[in-house]
Formats: sequence, C-alpha cells, structure tokens
Amino acid sequence: MEQAGAIVSVAELERFCREALRKCGLNDADARVASDVLVTTDTFGVFTHGTKALKNYIRRIRAGGLDPNAVPEICGEGPAWAVVDGHSALAMVTSVFAMNTAIAKAKTAGIAYVGVRNSCHFGAAGYYALQAAKAGMIGMAMANDVPSMAVPGSRKAVLGTNPFAYAVPAGEEDPIFLDIASSAVAGGKIRIAQTLGQKVPDTWLVDTEGVPTTDPSTYPHAGSLQPFAGHKGYGIALMIETLAGALGGAAMRWDIGGWLDDDPALPTRHGAAFLAFDVGQITPLVVFTKRVDATIRDIRLTPKAKGADRIRVPGEMEWHKRRIALEKGLDLPEDVRESLRNLAEELGITADWLSI
Amino acid sequence: MEQAGAIVSVAELERFCREALRKCGLNDADARVASDVLVTTDTFGVFTHGTKALKNYIRRIRAGGLDPNAVPEICGEGPAWAVVDGHSALAMVTSVFAMNTAIAKAKTAGIAYVGVRNSCHFGAAGYYALQAAKAGMIGMAMANDVPSMAVPGSRKAVLGTNPFAYAVPAGEEDPIFLDIASSAVAGGKIRIAQTLGQKVPDTWLVDTEGVPTTDPSTYPHAGSLQPFAGHKGYGIALMIETLAGALGGAAMRWDIGGWLDDDPALPTRHGAAFLAFDVGQITPLVVFTKRVDATIRDIRLTPKAKGADRIRVPGEMEWHKRRIALEKGLDLPEDVRESLRNLAEELGITADWLSI
Repeated sequence: MEQAGAIVSVAELERFCREALRKCGLNDADARVASDVLVTTDTFGVFTHGTKALKNYIRRIRAGGLDPNAVPEICGEGPAWAVVDGHSALAMVTSVFAMNTAIAKAKTAGIAYVGVRNSCHFGAAGYYALQAAKAGMIGMAMANDVPSMAVPGSRKAVLGTNPFAYAVPAGEEDPIFLDIASSAVAGGKIRIAQTLGQKVPDTWLVDTEGVPTTDPSTYPHAGSLQPFAGHKGYGIALMIETLAGALGGAAMRWDIGGWLDDDPALPTRHGAAFLAFDVGQITPLVVFTKRVDATIRDIRLTPKAKGADRIRVPGEMEWHKRRIALEKGLDLPEDVRESLRNLAEELGITADWLSI
Repeated sequence: MEQAGAIVSVAELERFCREALRKCGLNDADARVASDVLVTTDTFGVFTHGTKALKNYIRRIRAGGLDPNAVPEICGEGPAWAVVDGHSALAMVTSVFAMNTAIAKAKTAGIAYVGVRNSCHFGAAGYYALQAAKAGMIGMAMANDVPSMAVPGSRKAVLGTNPFAYAVPAGEEDPIFLDIASSAVAGGKIRIAQTLGQKVPDTWLVDTEGVPTTDPSTYPHAGSLQPFAGHKGYGIALMIETLAGALGGAAMRWDIGGWLDDDPALPTRHGAAFLAFDVGQITPLVVFTKRVDATIRDIRLTPKAKGADRIRVPGEMEWHKRRIALEKGLDLPEDVRESLRNLAEELGITADWLSI
C-alpha cells in the first residue's frame, strides 16, 4: 500500500477535514474535535478508521441521519457516572464529550463510567482511551454495533464487532494502548481482502451455514465474522453490549442502524461506554508511572523468540507511526485518498494537495 | 473423567472444606467464605479451580506463607474506590471482602473499583463477579499472577495467565457470566494433558525457543503458554497487570510468588481488582434486566450453524451444571477426590464420604 511521493501533511489533512465538516454545518469547535479524532487515527496507521470514513459520516449528515447542530447532553448522572444522549451528533463529538465527562467525574470520585445513547459509529476506540491517559488516568472506551459477527454455534450474526480500547499513562515511555475488535479481525480488513480479491484465513468468517470459510465475498450480506478466540471474544462482545448498550439505555444489536449500509436519513442509535480511573488518587502517580515504564522496558528486553526481531508493547507501533507522520507527513493509502477526493468533489472544496 | 457412583453432596463437601480450614486456624466465618468460593466453583464444573486446590492453599497456611488469622484491611479509599491490603490472608477471604467493598462503594457512587495487594491465588474469578450480579450490579474481577505466558515475539514467559471475569444480572434468566484466562487455555488444562500423556494444540504453548509446540511436558519449567488471539490476549493480560497490580500497589510479574511452585513459607503478594456497577442507579433496573433477558433468549433462538446443537450464552453451561450438582450431588473427578483424600490424611480428619 506504500505510495512513493504520496505524502500529505497532518496539518493539511486536518484543515481539509475541518473545512468539509464546517461546510456541512458543524461549528468550528466540533469540526476541530472530529477532525482530530480521525486524523490522529490515521497517524497511528489505522487507516480503516480514520479520515477514509469521513465521506460516510458526511453522507449521513447531509441525509439527516446525523445532526450537525446537535449538542450532546448529560441526561442522568451520579457521583461516579453519567449517561450522555448524543442526540445524533457526529459520534466523535459525542464520544470526546463523554470521555471528558468521565475524566471530570473521576477527578472527584476516583473512577467514573459514562454511558452514551443515540450516537453513531465512533471511529477508533483508542483515541478516547488516550484522552484519559493524557489526563494521567487509565481509560477504556467501547461501543456496540449492528450484528455482523457469528458466535459459537450460530448460523448468522449475533453481535457487532464491538470494539474495546484501553490506555495506561506511563512516565518517560508512551502510554500503553490497545484498540481491538471483538471479532478475529475488523470488518474493514475483510473489505480490503474483497477489494484486492484475496482469500482470508478460515478463522475470520463463517458462511451462510455458519461454517468457516476463506471466501470474503459473502461479507457482510451473507457471511458473518467470527469472534476472536471463540467463546472468549463472544463473551467480551456481550459484555460490551451490556456496558455500551443496556446500561446507558442505548439501542442494542439489531435495533442499531448500520452506519454504512442502512438508510443515511435515519439515526443509527449506537451506544458507547467510557471509563476513567484517576491513578493519582488511588496510588502515587509517580510510583505508578515508574512501574509502568519499568514493565514496558522489561518486556521489550525479554529474550526474543527464534525468528522474532522485536517484542512490542501494545501501542508501540502506533506511536512509532505517529511520530513519523508528524515529522515527515502521512503516507495515505490510495483508498483513503480516493475517498477524500470523492468527498471534496461532492462538497465542491479543493483537494489539490491530495494529488501531489 | 466421569466416575459412576462417585457422587458427593455439596453440603458434605462444604462441611469438609470448613473443617479443614478451621483445623488450620481460620475462624468459622472465614472458613465458610472460602469453602463457598471453592465448592461453588466445583458446582460450575470448573474443577481445576475449586476444592482440588484447597490442599495447596492449606500447605501455604501451614508453612506460613498465608496467615490464617490475617484480617484484610482497607488501606486507602475515596468515593468510588478502595485499596485492600490482604495481609496474606487466604485470597478467597480477601477477594470476597474486596468485592463486598466495591459493592458498598458502588451503592453510593454508582460504580466502584477496589484494588487488592498482598493476596494470593484467588481461585476462579467468576465467583467474585457473581457477588455483584447477586446485588443487582454488573461485576468484574481480575488478578495478576507470576509469568507463565509468552507474548508475540518473546522466547519466555512475560505475563501471568491473568484471569478476567464479568457477570451481568438478568431478570428471569440466570446472570450472564464469563470467566477466562488471558492465555489460550488455563495452566490447569496443560497439567491435565501432562497427567494423561496427551499432546496439545499448537496454539497453547511455545517451547524454550518461543516456537509453538504440541508437547505439554515442558510446562511450566521450560515452555510457556500462549495468549489467546495473539496480541489481543497479550494486551488484555497487560491491562489486568496495571489494574490488578500497579493501580492497587500490588506485586507485579516476576515479583509475584508462584502459589504452587515457590516456597510455601513466603507470601506470594498477588494483586487483584474488582469493579461493580450499580445498574439501578444508572438505568431502571427492571428495564435493564428485561433487555438482558431478551438478549439471552434471542441469542439462544438464533438459527444454529450446520452441526451445532445449541447456542449457549456465557455462563449457561455453568448454571446447568450447578443445578445438577445441587439436586443430585457433585460428580467429583478422581484427581479432585485424590487431592481431598490426601488433605484429609495430612490433617487427620475423616474423608470416608469421599470413598463412597
């Protein structure tokens, strides 16, 4: 996917995203928030969940399923929790607000949970977990989604690929962070295999009879994804469904709209959940971060397996890619560039910088 | 492992465990708490983590590594959190106290975290998560352990098989609950394969070079377990290490003592973490439990995959086994019976009922 000479600057990409969102009616603050989520995700190398998706979010804004003027609102709260109604705002705006609310609550209570209802596909969960880490807190972010994943014994999809992310603040090292789907792989990877005409491992998908298959072409209209590690991924997805769906009063499972495939004029009503743990209240922050640093370094220095070149701590590869992106610019894959060019054309804004 | 005619009553087994623990100096209340944890785990069919381990816990009590008179103590707290020092009490006693503390805190704050230090191997995490579900709360329980699990790229063990459990209260249905190790399988399953002289799948273990192997005989002195789903299980294990280790000020990784293999005269200093979410404060409890019931029933009724006889919700098999155990008695595998017989002999108490 490397495109020699296809480097774009992070600032330019952010500016473009902001302009596109402003053109669709978002105010400047919200446009900045959403752009930062998507562009940061690209800098981590997670191009399936970054600015490539902006075109689809904007399609929903223009069709009415997302409201560019909506203001997420706390509709219930207690000492260590809140529920946020997104009122169909762009999910990045709602999610950043929700995690900020969790951080504020955790500052007084020690830890906090925020459930979200009436949201949409929120992009990469990792960004929100990292908001907490920046504030010296352990963060978790998760969301439900329309079912596309079979579970052990089922013929068809039962749960979404419900993503989960966490982040842990370190001292001199970058925060540890992990961002995973409950499925063996994210749906985006199947779509890439479809585009490239490739087969997939038989642990990724089941066919219409619920039997493992290597053919990606049936997804998502007929085949379904498989959970990671069988009953373990299934169980984690169901936990997320309760924390991000039932507990915050959001839609669940088949009541959620498909953000890509369903009528863009209708809200999708996704749920999400955010947790923040204010480390410094519970244990001395400097002791904690030193122990995290020591753990990271010790893992990295563990003797390597035959044939392995290094041992990475979760998030390490993403921070490495982000540093390169900030220093040298982003090497956007062609599918992302195409999506952005199409969006620019639709909105009548310039994307000359993409054709460099 | 079925032993025709080897049925023992749950009450008899509990009485035996209490007698054994009383004989080692525990007071009646603590002996009852620990016995209930271990016997309940047996009734769920999780024999690797039930009364079979009592002999090993008692070995540590008699050698001095566990203190039968220790009283777990809250050594730090805030509105939505506490840290409990187990003072080397039996880990079941400390863990039940810690989850009860989390439940009490969640009653006022909405949710709560309790970190535990100076504990030991706590048995099956699921029991503690279910304490919360019984109180109408979502519960989570996790613990760290001495490293026995390699991570992607490592030659030797880097993290423990750090267990994680959650439980969700339902209405008419049994609570959903999942209890998993961060490894592809729990160490107990490897030990069973060793005993039976069987090979294991190549996703369970790596050899001394960090290469996947099917030979269980190297575990745990030379080979290491593999995490479930590669980097996903690795990342979850590391998250548990921070929540159950660093955040509560417990020992981490190689500073933890091996509860089976290390000097029983020394404390193991395991950490643990417990979370409780008081559902009824956040959303109407009856609405929540109805949605959980509907989810359970709908999943169960999903069309089955070719060859599948049923779709189980996490915990369903365990509740089924427990009901049979309570009605008809426990069909204890021979390795559990042998462990209990040895313990009875060591302590000079009767175990005639085991030879039925």
